[in-house]
Amino acid sequence: MRWRVRPIVAGWRITHRDLSTMAHPSIDSFPMIAAIDLGSNSFHMVLAKADHGEIRILERLGDKVQLAAGLDDERMLSEEAMQRGLDCLRRFAQLTANLPEGAVRIVGTNALREARNRAEFIRRAEELLSHQVEVISGREEARLIYLGVSHSIADTPGKRLVTDIGGGSTEFIIGQRFEPLLRESLQMGCVSFTQRFFRDGKITPARYAQAYTAARLEIMGIEHALRRLGWEDAVGASGTIKAIGLAIQAAGLGSGEVNAEGLAWLKRKLFKIGETDKLDLDGIKPDRRAIFPAGLAILEAIFDACAIERMSHSEGALREGVLYDLMGRHQHEDVRERTLSSLMERYHVDLEQASRVESKALSALDKVAGDWQLQEDWHRELLSWAAKVHEVGLDIAHYQYHKHGAYLIEHSDLAGFSRQDQQMLALLVRGHRRNIPKDKFAEFGADGIKLIRLCVLLRFAILFHHIRGGQEMPQVQLLAREQSLEIVFPDNWLEANPLTQADFVREADWLKRVGIELSVR
Amino acid sequence: MRWRVRPIVAGWRITHRDLSTMAHPSIDSFPMIAAIDLGSNSFHMVLAKADHGEIRILERLGDKVQLAAGLDDERMLSEEAMQRGLDCLRRFAQLTANLPEGAVRIVGTNALREARNRAEFIRRAEELLSHQVEVISGREEARLIYLGVSHSIADTPGKRLVTDIGGGSTEFIIGQRFEPLLRESLQMGCVSFTQRFFRDGKITPARYAQAYTAARLEIMGIEHALRRLGWEDAVGASGTIKAIGLAIQAAGLGSGEVNAEGLAWLKRKLFKIGETDKLDLDGIKPDRRAIFPAGLAILEAIFDACAIERMSHSEGALREGVLYDLMGRHQHEDVRERTLSSLMERYHVDLEQASRVESKALSALDKVAGDWQLQEDWHRELLSWAAKVHEVGLDIAHYQYHKHGAYLIEHSDLAGFSRQDQQMLALLVRGHRRNIPKDKFAEFGADGIKLIRLCVLLRFAILFHHIRGGQEMPQVQLLAREQSLEIVFPDNWLEANPLTQADFVREADWLKRVGIELSVR
Repeated sequence: MRWRVRPIVAGWRITHRDLSTMAHPSIDSFPMIAAIDLGSNSFHMVLAKADHGEIRILERLGDKVQLAAGLDDERMLSEEAMQRGLDCLRRFAQLTANLPEGAVRIVGTNALREARNRAEFIRRAEELLSHQVEVISGREEARLIYLGVSHSIADTPGKRLVTDIGGGSTEFIIGQRFEPLLRESLQMGCVSFTQRFFRDGKITPARYAQAYTAARLEIMGIEHALRRLGWEDAVGASGTIKAIGLAIQAAGLGSGEVNAEGLAWLKRKLFKIGETDKLDLDGIKPDRRAIFPAGLAILEAIFDACAIERMSHSEGALREGVLYDLMGRHQHEDVRERTLSSLMERYHVDLEQASRVESKALSALDKVAGDWQLQEDWHRELLSWAAKVHEVGLDIAHYQYHKHGAYLIEHSDLAGFSRQDQQMLALLVRGHRRNIPKDKFAEFGADGIKLIRLCVLLRFAILFHHIRGGQEMPQVQLLAREQSLEIVFPDNWLEANPLTQADFVREADWLKRVGIELSVR
Repeated sequence: MRWRVRPIVAGWRITHRDLSTMAHPSIDSFPMIAAIDLGSNSFHMVLAKADHGEIRILERLGDKVQLAAGLDDERMLSEEAMQRGLDCLRRFAQLTANLPEGAVRIVGTNALREARNRAEFIRRAEELLSHQVEVISGREEARLIYLGVSHSIADTPGKRLVTDIGGGSTEFIIGQRFEPLLRESLQMGCVSFTQRFFRDGKITPARYAQAYTAARLEIMGIEHALRRLGWEDAVGASGTIKAIGLAIQAAGLGSGEVNAEGLAWLKRKLFKIGETDKLDLDGIKPDRRAIFPAGLAILEAIFDACAIERMSHSEGALREGVLYDLMGRHQHEDVRERTLSSLMERYHVDLEQASRVESKALSALDKVAGDWQLQEDWHRELLSWAAKVHEVGLDIAHYQYHKHGAYLIEHSDLAGFSRQDQQMLALLVRGHRRNIPKDKFAEFGADGIKLIRLCVLLRFAILFHHIRGGQEMPQVQLLAREQSLEIVFPDNWLEANPLTQADFVREADWLKRVGIELSVR
């Protein structure tokens, strides 16, 4: 199977970027790329080859892990559920073990968003896979689903509503061509709804009505926004929707798409059968029977809430979206850069200042990267991002704006970023002035000290440009040791510029509190 | 003295308002209005008469309370300082005791923003004054200062930089005519700087340089923004600036304005005298001597940072601004309405939905106000505001958007609102869906239960319009008792609308947790 590569983002616009400082290896230099989706119902992997702008799928693997079913009332993932997941990943690992960093992206969705002990599962998964696992937000999931869908269906000009019913969450996207216009994620899925309404396998009209009503109430929060934007075609993108379409087709009521008539027929059929074990219908695989009634109730609720008459199915979804996103990152179409640009624009960041701080921070990084062990790609990326957005909080209020900026970055839906990315970025913004919150850095374990060092470099660049372009600044030397940083200005420069001197004297006090001795001369 | 009333806000625009539901008594029906300013250095009161659109000042009282000097390292206000303040307020109280609610506004500034035990002082002050005391943010202070200044100086077309050096904070505003374009407040003032740099009354060039440098570092954070906007005239608005101008005038170097030459002369003079006790200069009253050097260092830093050559003085400032603001509230020029409109616009609130929810919430309030003791003006105002802005957080992320909205409202600089207003408004937004955080409501003491009731009314209105105009809704009856609320729909309506029914069943569970029994039939 060959995927034609199209522009990933329509209306591409970068207002503030420094390509020269970002090192992206060419995607073609990777022998293979892989995407792994740690879903709430099943885990999937696709292995592909990027070849002169095309993606060729080489392998697809999947396993019905049912991670969401292993979440207890306290939102703790059981050891058995973890084991089911790790057993599956052990198989995937054989194929990804030899792929280089940057060639594999592994995303966790709702069950891992929910699990309070996700850190343990992630640690064990990363050990097995030798690649980083990211937990993504619901809206980021929606973005990636749309990316996958838009590359796998006909490129029509009208708006589309894309729906993906997962195990723990259901995503809704309205998009046009390759651009998502609205992304939503609701806390309802076929595994979690099965546990709430069909736990013992009995299917009755009353239970079905409960599940349907619960779904309608969830959708109510977004249906107005969906209708206001409008769409021409409805597309479904998950195993649940595919199975319903096939069952309807088997009954002679369509050719694979879902339609209102077919839904009504299926519902009556389910009530007649009465038990999930006995759902021996064409199109429904045995391991999908248990979650089928919940999926049907959710889909019927979507049809009614959105007044849909017909929904086609797309094979491409989250995993394919992850592959296209991975490819984009290596072709200077990194959606994260675009996200930050729009964040900066929205919160009226002083772009010139951000650019000065960014280039100073990165040149400082070049000088100390060896001594401070800051040589990985993510160190550079994170510092560059933080320099761009460190002032976003000013738009809320001047007082404690570093905290407001951190709040915005941690809680906004930032397309392209994992939760961990957002947390690290928020922490650098939080620490860019005044007190550096040592405890919060310590939460990142071994990376904590690296993050503090990045924060110190960011602060240096900000103090260096404190006067904001109002003054020509001199070249300085930076000398980093394990616990110290020395900044050497040209002879007599500091004496002639007592404001900068006073600034760095005050900075030395702040840095002392995190165990770094700053000397300036 | 007569003040000509001019339009308070240029470019007035209200996009979403419901005048019919807000009851504003006419300002002319008040015999007098009063503004009290609980400053960090001194407390002041102005008593005035509003008469057919004019303000006539009847009385001015002031007292050098030096509240900021009573703050210890732990930011606790000493009992002596409180007593000094209360003694002063006891005198003011004679004049305000008989004024009705709405005719007096009392604002606390930096020393009260800082004091951790401000609640105690406010309680005692309110007992004495029989009117509510509000602590306002630095930017709100800046707004009110500009309002006062712009009504007391010539109405020129160019932009102005207005500076007010207070005891604990210094405000900077760039405005044009009656509109502030940029408002900033920095944590430096003549009382706090005196304690840091001139505690023992000695004046040396080294100490002066320290104070000057500290001020320059503070200003550095905003000077770029000031310069970018630019201005034609610089205006000073505080006792400190007035005294400096008079001292310069007495030396024959000007006619009351501050200029660079005069500042240089004064500084040399101060060094020569060497002690604050001996500052026996024309223009400087004895009780201002101690804080004079700190004020001069701050003003010189402002002159240098902003490249100012000449600064005139305005008699009108915070207190006059408070009077004009009070008058505006009664003339349907309530700046708070405008602030909320711009907040709604900025965060893309669905205006139609906000309007539906507001009018439903207010009509529900009418029905239960007697039984639930929600008959005061602020109950109605607060409910109306909360209905307008309850969805602002959606613009950050859908997930937990009620919390994001509360964060924005608590931390944004909302022109016209006191801190307490913002906290109460944030809490209603926080509690508008899902769990109602009982503990946070309890922090408001006796008002806590009132706030919970307002929150229940807001939630009712939101659930009632959950379908967002997609359905004609029926008339309902509301019956409130001490611990319960009964909602009566028309016969058979609920049975025919199971979604609304399910919504209210779920709501009953949430309300039970705060001790309110909801029944719906």
